Amino acid sequence: MSTTNTNSAELYRSYQSSMRRIADIRYSAAVLQWDQETYLPSKGAAFRGQQLATLTEIAHQEFTSDALGVLLQELSSRADLDAEQQRNVALTLEDYNRNKKFSSAFVRQLTEVVNRSFHSWMEARKANSFSLFAGDLAELVKLKKEEAEILGYERHCYDAMLNDHDKGASVQLLDKVFDTIRQPLQSLLAQVQSRPQVNNSFLQQHFPKDKQWDFGMQLIREMGYDLEAGRQDLSEHPFTTNFNCRDVRVTTRIDVNDLGNMVWSCIHEAGHALYEQGLPEPQYGLPLGEPASYTIHESQSRLWENHVGRSLAWCQHYLPVLQQYFPEQLQSLDAMTFYKGINQVTPSLIRTEADELTYHFHVMIRYELEKALMENSITTADIPSYWNESYLRYMNVKVPDDRQGCLQDVHWSHGSFGYFPTYSLGSFYAAQLFAIAEKNIPGLEHQIQKGQMDSLLSWLREQVHRYGRMYTSEDLCKKVTGETLNISYFLQYLQRKYGSIYA
Amino acid sequence: MSTTNTNSAELYRSYQSSMRRIADIRYSAAVLQWDQETYLPSKGAAFRGQQLATLTEIAHQEFTSDALGVLLQELSSRADLDAEQQRNVALTLEDYNRNKKFSSAFVRQLTEVVNRSFHSWMEARKANSFSLFAGDLAELVKLKKEEAEILGYERHCYDAMLNDHDKGASVQLLDKVFDTIRQPLQSLLAQVQSRPQVNNSFLQQHFPKDKQWDFGMQLIREMGYDLEAGRQDLSEHPFTTNFNCRDVRVTTRIDVNDLGNMVWSCIHEAGHALYEQGLPEPQYGLPLGEPASYTIHESQSRLWENHVGRSLAWCQHYLPVLQQYFPEQLQSLDAMTFYKGINQVTPSLIRTEADELTYHFHVMIRYELEKALMENSITTADIPSYWNESYLRYMNVKVPDDRQGCLQDVHWSHGSFGYFPTYSLGSFYAAQLFAIAEKNIPGLEHQIQKGQMDSLLSWLREQVHRYGRMYTSEDLCKKVTGETLNISYFLQYLQRKYGSIYA
Repeated sequence: MSTTNTNSAELYRSYQSSMRRIADIRYSAAVLQWDQETYLPSKGAAFRGQQLATLTEIAHQEFTSDALGVLLQELSSRADLDAEQQRNVALTLEDYNRNKKFSSAFVRQLTEVVNRSFHSWMEARKANSFSLFAGDLAELVKLKKEEAEILGYERHCYDAMLNDHDKGASVQLLDKVFDTIRQPLQSLLAQVQSRPQVNNSFLQQHFPKDKQWDFGMQLIREMGYDLEAGRQDLSEHPFTTNFNCRDVRVTTRIDVNDLGNMVWSCIHEAGHALYEQGLPEPQYGLPLGEPASYTIHESQSRLWENHVGRSLAWCQHYLPVLQQYFPEQLQSLDAMTFYKGINQVTPSLIRTEADELTYHFHVMIRYELEKALMENSITTADIPSYWNESYLRYMNVKVPDDRQGCLQDVHWSHGSFGYFPTYSLGSFYAAQLFAIAEKNIPGLEHQIQKGQMDSLLSWLREQVHRYGRMYTSEDLCKKVTGETLNISYFLQYLQRKYGSIYA
Repeated sequence: MSTTNTNSAELYRSYQSSMRRIADIRYSAAVLQWDQETYLPSKGAAFRGQQLATLTEIAHQEFTSDALGVLLQELSSRADLDAEQQRNVALTLEDYNRNKKFSSAFVRQLTEVVNRSFHSWMEARKANSFSLFAGDLAELVKLKKEEAEILGYERHCYDAMLNDHDKGASVQLLDKVFDTIRQPLQSLLAQVQSRPQVNNSFLQQHFPKDKQWDFGMQLIREMGYDLEAGRQDLSEHPFTTNFNCRDVRVTTRIDVNDLGNMVWSCIHEAGHALYEQGLPEPQYGLPLGEPASYTIHESQSRLWENHVGRSLAWCQHYLPVLQQYFPEQLQSLDAMTFYKGINQVTPSLIRTEADELTYHFHVMIRYELEKALMENSITTADIPSYWNESYLRYMNVKVPDDRQGCLQDVHWSHGSFGYFPTYSLGSFYAAQLFAIAEKNIPGLEHQIQKGQMDSLLSWLREQVHRYGRMYTSEDLCKKVTGETLNISYFLQYLQRKYGSIYA
C-alpha cells in the first residue's frame, strides 16, 4: 500500500490492525506469565522462559518495523483524524521512536543481564547475602545508565527512568514532592508515637484458608469487579494482569495466621483490575486502551485499598460480614477498634507491610538510593550500608539482615529503576481524587457504610478509566480535580485519620 | 548466511533454532488454548480467539518462509548428518512442502469456515437440530475436498485426510482392517448378548467430587505421570496438551453420580501424557520431539486405559484403594464383580461412553460416513438418516435425536475428517504392543496387581516414547513387535476378556 495516496481512514485502519496484532502477541506473553506465576509445573520453567523470550522478541520486531514507522509518520501529518486518533498516533509514534533507539544487541544484552540478575537476587535472598547480587546488579545499573543516555534526558539521567513510568516525572518534581512531605510526615509520626499504641492483635489469629478465600471473593465482587471478565487465583506475590479489558485477572495470597494480608491485597489488586476493566474495549491494542501511567494505576489501587478499604465506613459495613465468616475470632470486636487496629502505624522493615504513613519513608529511601546510584555517588557494593543507615535515620529501624533489608524487593533484579516513586505519587493522587469524589458523590461515606460501591466506581470509570492514555497523569489530575498534584490533600487526609485514631 | 558454503553442523543449528522459535509460538498458542478450556472468563473469549488466530498466523508465516525452504533443501542434500538429523530434516521438508501448497487465502478461508462451523455446531446442539449445522458443514466438506486435491493422493481423496493423521493410512488399509474385524466383532457381540448381563450399577452412586479428585490424582501419579512436569485440572471435555516434554497437562471431568467417568478418563489422558513426557527433550521443536502419529498416541492412552486400567489385576489392586476413598459406596464389592461391571458390553448411543467392543462400530459408522461424504455419494443433509440407519444396522440402537446422534462429536465442526479411524487403529496397536509387553516384562500382570507400573512405563519409554517421529506407526510396530499391524491380537484379547466375563 502506498501510504501517501491512501485516505486517512484507511491508513488509520491499517495502523490499528498492526497494533492489534502486536497487542495479541504481547498479551499472549502476558497469559504465559500469568500461568508462570499461578499454575506452571516447576520443571516447565526453562522452556517457558524461552517461549516468553520468543514472543517478546517478535513483538519487538513488529513494533520496530520500518513499515510501521512509515505509516506512523504519514498518519501524524494527517489533519483529518479526530482528537482520539491523533492522540493514539502521537503516542504510538513516541513509543515507536523510543523503541527504535535500542539496537537488538542492546536489548538482548539487557535481557540476558536481567535474567542473570533475577537468579542471583534469588540466590542472594536464599543465602541472605546482598554481596551475591551486587556484581550482577552493578552490570545492570551500568546498562540502565546507558539506556538513559540512549533515551536522552534534560537534567538528570534518572529522569529518563522516572519518565518511563510516568511521563513528566523527574528528579526535580520528586525532590520537591518529597522535600515538602518529609518533615510533616516525620512530625506526624512523632506525634503518633507519643500516644498509646492501638491494638491489632485480632488480625493475628488462625483464619482458615477456605473462608478467607470466600470472603476475598465476596469483597472484590462487591467492589464491582466483574468475575465474568476476570478471575482470582493464588500466587506467591499478589498481582493484577490483563489480556484485554474483558479478561483482567488478579491474584492474592493467604496467610492463615494473618487476616490482613489477604483482605487488603484483594482490595488493592481489585482496584488495579477495576481500572483495566474500565478501559475502552474498542481501543484494544492502542494507547487509549492502555492505562495513563503506573502512577495513575497505583492511584486506583490505593484509593480503594486505603480511602475505601481502611475507612471507618468500610469497617462498619464489613466487620459484621467478617464476623459471619469468622465468628469465633472476631465476635467481640467493634467497628472502631477494628478501624483503629487496621490503621496501626509502626515503623517497620518491609515496605509491602507498611502503614500509610511510614510507607513513604520506604519509598523515599529507595528513591534517594536509586538517584545516588545513577549519580555514581554510591556503588552497588555500598547499598547495604546506605540502606541500613537510611532506615535508622528515617524510622529508627535497625535492619537485622539483607533479606529484610535491601534484598526485599524484586524490582531492581528486573531492571526496574524509577518504579518505586510511582507508589508514593499514586498515593498522593489517590488522596486528591478521593477528596474530589467525596465532594462530587453525595453521601459517599454513607454508601460505603452500606457496602454500596457502585457510585464510586461509576465516577472513577467516568473521570479516569475510560480515558486510557488520553491524558498524562498531570493533565488527568488537572481535568478531574481542577489543579495539578497537590500533596496537601494527602497530608490532610493522614492528619485527620491519625488524629482521630491516635487522638 | 550463504547456505551452500556453510558447514552442515552450523546449518543444522540454524535449522534447529528456526524450528524452536516456531515451536515457541505454537506452544504459546497451546497455552492460550489450555487456558481457554480451563480458566478463561467467559467474556474474554472473543479477544482470545483473535490472539490465537494471530499466533497461528505468525507460526504459519514463519514455517512457510522462503529462507527456511532454502535451508531445508540444502540440508537435505548433506550426507554428513547423522540418521536422526536426516530424519528430522526429511520430515520437516515434507511438512514444509505440505504447508507451502496452501495459499494464505485458502488458509484464511478454512479458518473462517471452521470458526463459523464450530459456532453453528454449538447452536445446532443447543437446538437439537442437525439442519442448523448442515449448511456450514457442507461448505467445510467442500473445502476439505479442495484441500485433498491440493495435497494430492493416489487413489481416494479421503486418503489425503487419513494420511494427515497417520502417515500411510488409506481407504484401502482401513477397508481391509474394518472388513476383517466387522464380522468377528458382530458375532462376539451376539455371543455376549446371549448371556446374562453383568451388573455395573455400583458405579452410579453419589461419589463426592473432592474424593474423586484425590483418587484421580493418586491414580495418575502412580502410573508414573510426573506432576512436576505437568498438572491436572478440570474441563468440560478431558484432554491432554503439552507445551514441551517438561510441561504436559491433563484435564478430567467429574460426575458425582458416576465414578467411571473420572477414573478411566484420568487413566486415558495420563496414558497420552506419559507419551509426551517421554519424548526426548533435546528434540524440542523438531519432528523427533513429536509423537509418531495420532494413532500411536491413541495406542498409548488405550493401552493404559483398557489393557491396564480395565484388567482384573488392576481391579485387584485398586478396588481396595477405592474402598478406602468410598467405603460406604463400595465396601461390599469384590474384585471380580468390579472387573466385570467396568467391562460391561452394551450397544449405546455415545461413542465416548462405549465399551471396548462396540466402540469400533461407532468408529466404523463415522468412517463409512466420512468416506461417503468425500465420494459425494451422500451430502451433509443426508447425515442424520445415514447415521441413524447405521446405528440401527450395526448395533440395533435407535437414535432418539441428533444431539445423541450425529451432533455428538466436535470433530467435524473443527474440520477434522480422518481422525476417528485413529481411535480404532490405536486400540489395535495397543493390543499388539501390550501382547509383546506381556512377553517381554516378566510378571507384568503380577506387578499391576501390586500397583507397580514402572516396568511397563520403562518398557514403553524405551520401545515407543523416546523415538518421537523417527518411525511411522507401521515401522514402529514392526520394530517393536516384529510384524506390522495384526488385528488378531486385538480380537484374541477381546475374546479372552469377554469369554471370562460373560462365560
